[in-house]
Amino acid sequence: MAVEIERKFLVINDEWRALGQPVVYRQGYLLAEPHRTVRVRVAGDRAYLTFKGATSGISRQEFEYPIPLEEAETLLGWCDRPLIEKTRTAITLGDLTWEVDEFMGDNAGLILAEVELPDAGYAFERPEWIGKEVSDDPRYFNANLIRHPYSQW
Amino acid sequence: MAVEIERKFLVINDEWRALGQPVVYRQGYLLAEPHRTVRVRVAGDRAYLTFKGATSGISRQEFEYPIPLEEAETLLGWCDRPLIEKTRTAITLGDLTWEVDEFMGDNAGLILAEVELPDAGYAFERPEWIGKEVSDDPRYFNANLIRHPYSQW
Repeated sequence: MAVEIERKFLVINDEWRALGQPVVYRQGYLLAEPHRTVRVRVAGDRAYLTFKGATSGISRQEFEYPIPLEEAETLLGWCDRPLIEKTRTAITLGDLTWEVDEFMGDNAGLILAEVELPDAGYAFERPEWIGKEVSDDPRYFNANLIRHPYSQW
Repeated sequence: MAVEIERKFLVINDEWRALGQPVVYRQGYLLAEPHRTVRVRVAGDRAYLTFKGATSGISRQEFEYPIPLEEAETLLGWCDRPLIEKTRTAITLGDLTWEVDEFMGDNAGLILAEVELPDAGYAFERPEWIGKEVSDDPRYFNANLIRHPYSQW
């Protein structure tokens, strides 16, 4: 069991690109309700099932299980359409890891940066390439980017 | 990946009770649609996530993953209500294993026997305690026993 404390920001320039290697992510949802989601994710040559509960502020209960890649491909076929396709670039700054997601397909043009914090009050330095915080804006939840993609905003 | 070939029957007397030890099952569904289900199951001191695809006759694609018991208990709390509670008794006869499910709660009174076959045309002997086959009757799908429990038939 894990409780995620994650903060999410818009990305305002390209300076992050030199700081890490992008990995292709393909993911879909079998269930995408406000208080519970079931996600299938292929990340490079690995695959995972992720179960998330209700969001409470910036905290959310989460369980993740690795599964065989081939089984994930079949499960992606059962997911709601369209799938989310993006690259994720992991960038370590100090003792934190930032993840920059650059979306493709119907969400092309959207770039988001997330950081997971050890506790809700943890102080951290914002890199120069991040802008406005969108942690509480449900439009940016991946599950909602399927129903209302960025290209339609 | 597994393709289930399962046949399901009503149970017509108590002769099966002497043939195995019942294990308590508690299970719920995060998703219960005709063509895809996500099930959380606690079976005795073990727990599993099970993903099933579309049913085609008596065959159905299925993936099952063991998970920690404590995480399954939390996930059961996210499932649709009511949960299904039953005992399952595994009974080996020849080279096949029968599973007899005796339901509790809103489905009390219902007893079903299932057998998984190595292939669709496999010949097998029916034990004396099974009656009518209900493999194709959706009322007996566990996912449907939540929405329309046996006590309301």
